[in-house]
Amino acid sequence: MKKVAIIGVGHVGSTTAYTLISKNIIDELVLFDPNVDLIHAEINDLLDGQMEQNHQVKIIDSNLSELADTDIIIFSAGDISLVKGNPDRFAELNLTKKIVEEWAPKIIATNFSGIILNITNPCDVVTQYLQELTGLPKERVIGTGTSLDTSRMKHAVSVHLGVHPSAISGYVIGEHGESQFVAWSTVRVAGCPITDLLTAQALNQLDIAARNGGWVTFQGKGYTSYGIAIQAAKITQAILNDNHLIVPITHYHPDEKCYVGDPAKVTKYGLDESYPLKLSKSEKEKWIHTIKTIHSMYSAI
Amino acid sequence: MKKVAIIGVGHVGSTTAYTLISKNIIDELVLFDPNVDLIHAEINDLLDGQMEQNHQVKIIDSNLSELADTDIIIFSAGDISLVKGNPDRFAELNLTKKIVEEWAPKIIATNFSGIILNITNPCDVVTQYLQELTGLPKERVIGTGTSLDTSRMKHAVSVHLGVHPSAISGYVIGEHGESQFVAWSTVRVAGCPITDLLTAQALNQLDIAARNGGWVTFQGKGYTSYGIAIQAAKITQAILNDNHLIVPITHYHPDEKCYVGDPAKVTKYGLDESYPLKLSKSEKEKWIHTIKTIHSMYSAI
Amino acid sequence: MKKVAIIGVGHVGSTTAYTLISKNIIDELVLFDPNVDLIHAEINDLLDGQMEQNHQVKIIDSNLSELADTDIIIFSAGDISLVKGNPDRFAELNLTKKIVEEWAPKIIATNFSGIILNITNPCDVVTQYLQELTGLPKERVIGTGTSLDTSRMKHAVSVHLGVHPSAISGYVIGEHGESQFVAWSTVRVAGCPITDLLTAQALNQLDIAARNGGWVTFQGKGYTSYGIAIQAAKITQAILNDNHLIVPITHYHPDEKCYVGDPAKVTKYGLDESYPLKLSKSEKEKWIHTIKTIHSMYSAI
Amino acid sequence: MKKVAIIGVGHVGSTTAYTLISKNIIDELVLFDPNVDLIHAEINDLLDGQMEQNHQVKIIDSNLSELADTDIIIFSAGDISLVKGNPDRFAELNLTKKIVEEWAPKIIATNFSGIILNITNPCDVVTQYLQELTGLPKERVIGTGTSLDTSRMKHAVSVHLGVHPSAISGYVIGEHGESQFVAWSTVRVAGCPITDLLTAQALNQLDIAARNGGWVTFQGKGYTSYGIAIQAAKITQAILNDNHLIVPITHYHPDEKCYVGDPAKVTKYGLDESYPLKLSKSEKEKWIHTIKTIHSMYSAI
Repeated sequence: MKKVAIIGVGHVGSTTAYTLISKNIIDELVLFDPNVDLIHAEINDLLDGQMEQNHQVKIIDSNLSELADTDIIIFSAGDISLVKGNPDRFAELNLTKKIVEEWAPKIIATNFSGIILNITNPCDVVTQYLQELTGLPKERVIGTGTSLDTSRMKHAVSVHLGVHPSAISGYVIGEHGESQFVAWSTVRVAGCPITDLLTAQALNQLDIAARNGGWVTFQGKGYTSYGIAIQAAKITQAILNDNHLIVPITHYHPDEKCYVGDPAKVTKYGLDESYPLKLSKSEKEKWIHTIKTIHSMYSAI
Repeated sequence: MKKVAIIGVGHVGSTTAYTLISKNIIDELVLFDPNVDLIHAEINDLLDGQMEQNHQVKIIDSNLSELADTDIIIFSAGDISLVKGNPDRFAELNLTKKIVEEWAPKIIATNFSGIILNITNPCDVVTQYLQELTGLPKERVIGTGTSLDTSRMKHAVSVHLGVHPSAISGYVIGEHGESQFVAWSTVRVAGCPITDLLTAQALNQLDIAARNGGWVTFQGKGYTSYGIAIQAAKITQAILNDNHLIVPITHYHPDEKCYVGDPAKVTKYGLDESYPLKLSKSEKEKWIHTIKTIHSMYSAI
Repeated sequence: MKKVAIIGVGHVGSTTAYTLISKNIIDELVLFDPNVDLIHAEINDLLDGQMEQNHQVKIIDSNLSELADTDIIIFSAGDISLVKGNPDRFAELNLTKKIVEEWAPKIIATNFSGIILNITNPCDVVTQYLQELTGLPKERVIGTGTSLDTSRMKHAVSVHLGVHPSAISGYVIGEHGESQFVAWSTVRVAGCPITDLLTAQALNQLDIAARNGGWVTFQGKGYTSYGIAIQAAKITQAILNDNHLIVPITHYHPDEKCYVGDPAKVTKYGLDESYPLKLSKSEKEKWIHTIKTIHSMYSAI
Repeated sequence: MKKVAIIGVGHVGSTTAYTLISKNIIDELVLFDPNVDLIHAEINDLLDGQMEQNHQVKIIDSNLSELADTDIIIFSAGDISLVKGNPDRFAELNLTKKIVEEWAPKIIATNFSGIILNITNPCDVVTQYLQELTGLPKERVIGTGTSLDTSRMKHAVSVHLGVHPSAISGYVIGEHGESQFVAWSTVRVAGCPITDLLTAQALNQLDIAARNGGWVTFQGKGYTSYGIAIQAAKITQAILNDNHLIVPITHYHPDEKCYVGDPAKVTKYGLDESYPLKLSKSEKEKWIHTIKTIHSMYSAI
């Protein structure tokens, strides 16, 4: 039986739960949230929503002891709406820092021996803080990192060139935040370097389009749900199915002494191997900048 | 190409869009909402959320002229949160009445020739009002009716008896509201009448559990999304795929001179045929009561 | 990790493997067949066929020691083509008896502690023989029984009445063979007894249509694959997902002292509970007849 | 309604039908085959196999007039088993040439205005011959080309490097036959050129492994079914859903004056645009060789 716990059942956690259930990825689910009425509401709505399915997910009552044999904790705590109007990921830090400090000892106390997949922002430093406070091995604490940003890049390129997203390979890397960047030197469309197809100016426009996409969603809804839920579900499936997916998660980089997002292979043991990209000179500078940003953010904890 | 429009992109409309996209039910989608920023946010988030799929839904800019060749309008307008704290479906009527009056002439003006599937509450009278104001043939204006309520009944029975929901057949009928009832005389578990398995008292408890389920969801979240989205998606698929599904939608009953929910066959032309249940004596009384309730609600328009 | 072994990779075993892979039901698969080239061919074709999927099934080299931690053995050995032209299920018995005698000791020797789901015909007596020779608990040895026949009945009724199969509830029970019968008294269409909708003559025609369906498939292809693969996959999913599905499998009936098909609940432990139908007088006679048939067939082993 | 016809219901055609039905890709299906009993058998088995689905495909009686409003003809005629033991694709040519000559006038006579997707081997020349004899626009007659070969390459690389196939981008191009080749210069693993990861010798081994994969399947089963069915289904979905997929289909190359496989964008109008790869010098030589092979094969018609 594949068992997942979701800590924090706001829009992101709830949509992730719905996605995991709809796609037959899990067998058992436990939800945790300070708002007990919300947990009951979501359990009820999710169960109503799976009455038509052959595959049925057992949703277990919220109880910390359930974490003992949970395979994956999806950490999506932190009420983004508190920082609405000021959605800088730094601003979230003060809020989510406390949430991590509250949850880490609870998780340890249950003898949890699975993998933590963090979504909570600022994703890189929160993932790192979760690892440090829980003391779990670094390969068993990862975060969604720039997986959503990579999707947004593919979305922008797909629209611009009129091609199916599967034709586009390549990655957005770095902080899941303002200092991230598209590693255009790695992006190919149907096997052709995108730098051969488009001018630097056009690529810059796409970079802006991808970023703006995130803002459009955030400004209009106050949060993103579908884009991130699909990424979290995909990584969860990769772990539970041990399928060796390569995805730009945030994970620990010993050389950089911090968590940061770039491609890595995921197995049932969590992080298996990092696949650093060969960057161009200007991309290397952006990488150094994004690492600095993460460090300065982390020191603010 | 299978084209659907969703009018009203609150939680219900948005989750229905996500479900239609995830399950490969549609090819083209148009969203309408007074909040233009919200439309842009949802389009963006939904597109980010489908970057991993082979099947890609084209989300078309919000423009009334698109309705001309739309197959199905899903009508989910009406901000439920306005009536929070007083979630009686009568209370919603004043709000949603105006929304119908605003939308009906717009829909007619586009020469829309497809089918309207209404979700907006109070579902039965709003569906009827939509039909009257648009003047579309009655078989082409239907509503989700007691399909969600039937799911909730199966959910309650499934939990109580420890069986998979597919083993449970039978229906909740009447108003999608307080006067609805489970037609227990039609409910069977693995081919056995549930009335042979459980006492009248136990059935009554299940009736309460099913209703409470709805309340638990509403009180905790302020709305239901997954349960209703799955039903709307299933009925949409039935129409687009012409699969002759029988589902308890609200549809016009000439004998009762109103819209009310009970089993009906759905085809690509909309309502095909009503499948009235053989009711017990006490159920017939409940039926008369629910019809009265709907009539009195409708006369309040 | 959900691990399944398939013993016998003819058309049925192979199509079942493809279905389990396509529907994300399993994580690991082991194939067994006397034809080693065929195993390699199927492994290779199945792997080519899943290159587009996120979910990847690991197909493990054919080795008996793998059964030690296998969750379910699907037993589909027995080359039906040998009895082509004489497809009476009695005729298959001589062939499949020996196959069971060959496999049972091999299975025991591996300390297999999962569940056997038998498809090989004649299904009821082969399942019983498998249970006796392996000595596994009766609840852990089951067979597909009349699940395919029930589907064929729904297919025939669905076509005749022009309704979606989900509107039809009820079962075919007894031997998976000539003496099986539709328990029409349990069949309902949209909550209405089919005996109220159709004459006894019409029901008889449907009975013939359902049986003929099987023959049409067998005569034209020499075997059935899709119909049975879907049922085997559904039952496999029910066990691995512990979803309490009720399905007409063949299972041991202490009162009848034999394996025979009628509705039963399936959990991760295999058979959980039998749900005997309330039969009409004439159906009871058919039941007695089918039990006799199974007994006489079993005594022929 | 999305309508597909399959001409030739051998293992490939039948498995493609099953895949299209299982994945909700089509609404209507017509099967054609000289063996009428086989058609009836497959229709019956496929319908039995979809009784559990919400989405139901209507399988229409085999009648040429149905082609008038068919969206896609999947051409999978040609009994490969006749050439077993001598599976050179040249050997198939004599057989399949006649089948094309038989079918082309029948197709024209129906005023078919959709797209032909050819699977029959030798795929490139049969596709070209189909286009010439039907006189349909070149962009509306395409073939599966090297899509399966590309999958086999990904399969080989995925196993060798222990990574999920989605991490591998790149193509096999040329004839769907012996003269095809992996354009290794286009293959990347997680954004890194495979030529940086593996020696030329190792790549050569993978080339052999990918080819051998095909042989292992063919030798053991006498045909391939799952690998090719998945590709045919994916391309069919791309056309019906107009999703702008880029896939290495065989299509007409004006410069080469023949059909040959390399990446191309597919829309609802069929071929939209070719995406020629930038080849290395040695790859260009292989390209010239494969074009020559196709020309010499075509002149043999």
